[in-house]
Amino acid sequence: MMVFRFDIPVRWVDTDALKVVHYSNYFRYVEEAEEELYRSLGFTFKELNEKYEIAIPRVEACCRYKVPARYGDILTVGLRLGEKTEKTMRYDFEIQRKSDDELLCSGYLKVIGLDLGTWKATTLPADLTVKVADALK
Amino acid sequence: MMVFRFDIPVRWVDTDALKVVHYSNYFRYVEEAEEELYRSLGFTFKELNEKYEIAIPRVEACCRYKVPARYGDILTVGLRLGEKTEKTMRYDFEIQRKSDDELLCSGYLKVIGLDLGTWKATTLPADLTVKVADALK
Amino acid sequence: MMVFRFDIPVRWVDTDALKVVHYSNYFRYVEEAEEELYRSLGFTFKELNEKYEIAIPRVEACCRYKVPARYGDILTVGLRLGEKTEKTMRYDFEIQRKSDDELLCSGYLKVIGLDLGTWKATTLPADLTVKVADALK
Amino acid sequence: MMVFRFDIPVRWVDTDALKVVHYSNYFRYVEEAEEELYRSLGFTFKELNEKYEIAIPRVEACCRYKVPARYGDILTVGLRLGEKTEKTMRYDFEIQRKSDDELLCSGYLKVIGLDLGTWKATTLPADLTVKVADALK
Repeated sequence: MMVFRFDIPVRWVDTDALKVVHYSNYFRYVEEAEEELYRSLGFTFKELNEKYEIAIPRVEACCRYKVPARYGDILTVGLRLGEKTEKTMRYDFEIQRKSDDELLCSGYLKVIGLDLGTWKATTLPADLTVKVADALK
Repeated sequence: MMVFRFDIPVRWVDTDALKVVHYSNYFRYVEEAEEELYRSLGFTFKELNEKYEIAIPRVEACCRYKVPARYGDILTVGLRLGEKTEKTMRYDFEIQRKSDDELLCSGYLKVIGLDLGTWKATTLPADLTVKVADALK
Repeated sequence: MMVFRFDIPVRWVDTDALKVVHYSNYFRYVEEAEEELYRSLGFTFKELNEKYEIAIPRVEACCRYKVPARYGDILTVGLRLGEKTEKTMRYDFEIQRKSDDELLCSGYLKVIGLDLGTWKATTLPADLTVKVADALK
Repeated sequence: MMVFRFDIPVRWVDTDALKVVHYSNYFRYVEEAEEELYRSLGFTFKELNEKYEIAIPRVEACCRYKVPARYGDILTVGLRLGEKTEKTMRYDFEIQRKSDDELLCSGYLKVIGLDLGTWKATTLPADLTVKVADALK
């Protein structure tokens, strides 16, 4: 199974007064990796919005935290493709500390096709899902 | 069962280019309600850190998104106490739009006692858990 | 001269690994106070967008930092109306620690009327500027 | 005069409901470039904290906004060294859209040496200032 990996240095602003990354920021790191996955496939959220008149909002997001990330760490976000239906895709993610591969947290995001005209769930464009499935098969 | 409720207006900075609240921000709203719960009980994260030498980081966070929040909405975050062990507490949350009580998203946060000396899991201070259990029984 | 004051508790997520509020967040606090000013006058950014087809983006933002805010602090953001032209308004702000009125930082924001049709600078709606000038005269 | 340049793609979470980057986020982009400057010189904020027992908080931050950044844009942050004293350094920044070099905003950050023992202003470590001055001379 293919994994898309993207490295993100912990930014100062992402830490909190415990000197660790705030738990909400891991979801932002995962989205950043997802954006880079699409960019690597020639897509952006913007093009999805404009060309296909769809968006792909999240319907579910979960994360289990094991070890905190700290300032100075480089994180490697790994994305795998989980369950897929006509309207949804699930990304399973793992975030590791790059220096020693220690697993910091893991979880998943489930995205859905949203028709921007009706603001209702819709089939994900094949153009997107085929490329994603191909990259993460 | 008691619910702690706290109202939060959607802030402009919390919206994204779909004109809805970014999914990571609901976790921040839940934490804001949690902070206000503790404040209402006479605690702050800071006092937990300094007085008890513990922190209460999140070990699990999940959210299901149903309806997006938009700028101008006032949100009501409701917190209930879920499963509780010596070292952990789970908060089950619901976020509703205040104007019509529509459920926007729901999920849970699981927090753990962390000894700031050893940086290992530890028993949550009874002082905290008794007050929380009393407020949310 | 009238000042609009709004209290904001420092949120955990707003702190960084120095255990103080990250400098970018004071700009968010100022905007939060500005939003509450408008709300108190019966406006929202959204209504400006939808009713007047204008937005009021910032064209300048400056802040001098004197004393850091810490978790547990309640901040009082004070807004005064500075220089005003047909198309712009400047808000001068001060952020104080509520417990002892210590001045933490001060600065200004300059906002401009933006026509959402042409995406060019435009006259601010009198409805807005009169109410703001009246509240902050 | 040398300029340190660092590219940052606009992240979805950084946009707001006007479909442009929220004004507070440009300050975060500048800090991200500053962090990368230090990394390129073999420093991190963390090492400054731990090795020199100093921090370099901002005492002043200003930005003038000309053209908004949008999702899909790659931004180039350019840092120049401005006025320098024993205890302070000013970074003058410009943020351009990479695709056509259009200037989006410009401003400056002034940082100060802070002794983490006394929490008072202190001389910046020569090790840092010499390397920065050398890189940005």
